[in-house]
Amino acid sequence: MEKVRRERPLIHHITNIVTCGDCANITSSIGALPVMAYALEEVEEMVQAASAAVINIGTLLPDRLEAMIKMGKKAGENGIPVVLDPVGAGATAYRSKAALRLLKAIEPAIIKGNGAEIGFLAGVKGVKISGIQSIDAGDPLESVKRLLSALDYRAVVAVTGPVDVIADGKRVARVFNGHSFLPLVVGSGCMSASLMAAFAAVEKDYFLAAAAALAAMGVAGEIAAEKEVTGPAEYKVRFLDTLFHLNPQEFSSRARIEIR
Amino acid sequence: MEKVRRERPLIHHITNIVTCGDCANITSSIGALPVMAYALEEVEEMVQAASAAVINIGTLLPDRLEAMIKMGKKAGENGIPVVLDPVGAGATAYRSKAALRLLKAIEPAIIKGNGAEIGFLAGVKGVKISGIQSIDAGDPLESVKRLLSALDYRAVVAVTGPVDVIADGKRVARVFNGHSFLPLVVGSGCMSASLMAAFAAVEKDYFLAAAAALAAMGVAGEIAAEKEVTGPAEYKVRFLDTLFHLNPQEFSSRARIEIR
Amino acid sequence: MEKVRRERPLIHHITNIVTCGDCANITSSIGALPVMAYALEEVEEMVQAASAAVINIGTLLPDRLEAMIKMGKKAGENGIPVVLDPVGAGATAYRSKAALRLLKAIEPAIIKGNGAEIGFLAGVKGVKISGIQSIDAGDPLESVKRLLSALDYRAVVAVTGPVDVIADGKRVARVFNGHSFLPLVVGSGCMSASLMAAFAAVEKDYFLAAAAALAAMGVAGEIAAEKEVTGPAEYKVRFLDTLFHLNPQEFSSRARIEIR
Repeated sequence: MEKVRRERPLIHHITNIVTCGDCANITSSIGALPVMAYALEEVEEMVQAASAAVINIGTLLPDRLEAMIKMGKKAGENGIPVVLDPVGAGATAYRSKAALRLLKAIEPAIIKGNGAEIGFLAGVKGVKISGIQSIDAGDPLESVKRLLSALDYRAVVAVTGPVDVIADGKRVARVFNGHSFLPLVVGSGCMSASLMAAFAAVEKDYFLAAAAALAAMGVAGEIAAEKEVTGPAEYKVRFLDTLFHLNPQEFSSRARIEIR
Repeated sequence: MEKVRRERPLIHHITNIVTCGDCANITSSIGALPVMAYALEEVEEMVQAASAAVINIGTLLPDRLEAMIKMGKKAGENGIPVVLDPVGAGATAYRSKAALRLLKAIEPAIIKGNGAEIGFLAGVKGVKISGIQSIDAGDPLESVKRLLSALDYRAVVAVTGPVDVIADGKRVARVFNGHSFLPLVVGSGCMSASLMAAFAAVEKDYFLAAAAALAAMGVAGEIAAEKEVTGPAEYKVRFLDTLFHLNPQEFSSRARIEIR
Repeated sequence: MEKVRRERPLIHHITNIVTCGDCANITSSIGALPVMAYALEEVEEMVQAASAAVINIGTLLPDRLEAMIKMGKKAGENGIPVVLDPVGAGATAYRSKAALRLLKAIEPAIIKGNGAEIGFLAGVKGVKISGIQSIDAGDPLESVKRLLSALDYRAVVAVTGPVDVIADGKRVARVFNGHSFLPLVVGSGCMSASLMAAFAAVEKDYFLAAAAALAAMGVAGEIAAEKEVTGPAEYKVRFLDTLFHLNPQEFSSRARIEIR
């Protein structure tokens, strides 16, 4: 976290129209620099100037998908980590195909989704999604393991939920931090991908970066709930400001990450 | 309201880039699930998974209009109610034509606008709009009646304003709830369409759903103003959180709806 | 400022997907009416109904650029002032070319950017941008002067920073108001362009309009920091509400503008 604030890495996003402001805000809160750019004409140059990138298919369009692939490939050539957030994968054939196409075309450093999204990409039966909301998350660990195997272990896979599960084929991390208000905040999932990218920009072990980012979300979410809030809207403001002020010592002492 | 929170209906939006986050937030505040999707490739599948839909032409583009029509038709075939928010109709020929084309191509369950927008669609002379702001709203009841007649009474029409007017050809409702801060909140109009859709998802009498949604806006707006706020920005946060906590008893006791 | 609140000028924006809500909010806070519209089919008609316009290339696409040029030309024909915010100029060849193309195709009343953006447009060596963040701003006054000369003095040029610099070839203004929290607010740069447009809508001396807008940003930013805030997110809410309530007397007494 100190390294993010010191180095102020640029995080290139190709994301959706609903939570792009939230993604910019959290990137700024943690001390990194957000930029959103999705014209085919500039994504390659922009991502080369960045230290990490986020691809989020929340409000996908065909042109955006081409831009994502172009950007992801260029990032791959340059060793720039990409966090893929397959929002709504499994909800429509279009999104599902797009997510699977992205998995083939680029090599994301981290793939992050809710239980239903990752379960769908892993080919797990019985997971259920309503729009972008995981209704039946299945067994996150099984989803993670199957997706890792399908990808030949060339990525870190993270499933967010009451307990977040992160794995890279050798290690499995569970993050126990968080608060029940956090899933009520529209954009919290998208924001966690931005946070992962900010951490991956300064920590080459993407497994640790992903786990630390989810722990930072959770710790800030816990602290933000300590003082009374009027509801999810005020909580979101408080959460972003808590993350802004979160000091590394407090983060370390409160993070509850179990690695096996 | 209880039913929305219990069933958590999915509300599919094709809306604008300015207030799409607000629409997602209010949908979530009332307990429903928002999803935004506007690729031609997925709108039909997404809306079939939804319980209601919102079409908002606030930042219209030709491709979006095609997606709206495709989505609206599929919703119609499946009995899924659509709320049409003809933002800025009357402000430019393009928006006006688009709104009229939507009225012909699909059968919205509810058409909701400010006085100038509905007046324009109804062909009332003398209404005036500045961008998306109603400057001269005309007589809302006249606009509602004329639009209903033009549509052969196959929709509920609602005009928002200091007193909201909702009608379906047989009944006219007036909602007296509200607060002077509410129109100062950018996105309040768009948010009320999302709320209507959430209510229409669980209440087949769309006339009642529309009136109840506007009363819920107004009641939450009144309660939010009871404690001091620094201005419209803090008020918006308070409003969303009030709606989140609004209990059905308090809502019933404070709702001031007159039906004739 | 009184004139903005009295006349409620319509401000047409073609801006980005990240901060468009912020731009709408600040336009509304100062008492003007925001509208966002970027379909090629309607930009000319919309801008003719407006009193000023904003062009922001933050998340540019080829279609949007055509809309910006079409809108800007029509604004020019009708004497409607356009504020150009060349977000990220210098960060990619695409943005740079687009910004330069806009400078040739239209005659903005005010060009507003951070040090690196204006430095780049002015051809100053050594300025540095990371995404949209000015890393090395160079000498703002030199950038302003060179850009003014290149444009044959047919615009007002403003560089935002700890001290804002505004010039029109005859006069140079420096605005000393502001607060260190302001640059931490995502969207503050974009918002200042909206404020300039609102002022330019009612004040034909665009040099004064630009300086007054930046002073209003700064004064509101200072007052907003007088009471404790939890961080940049709460500060943003407070800032918008402070601007909403800012009275002309307090503004005048606190504005620190030096004109030479």
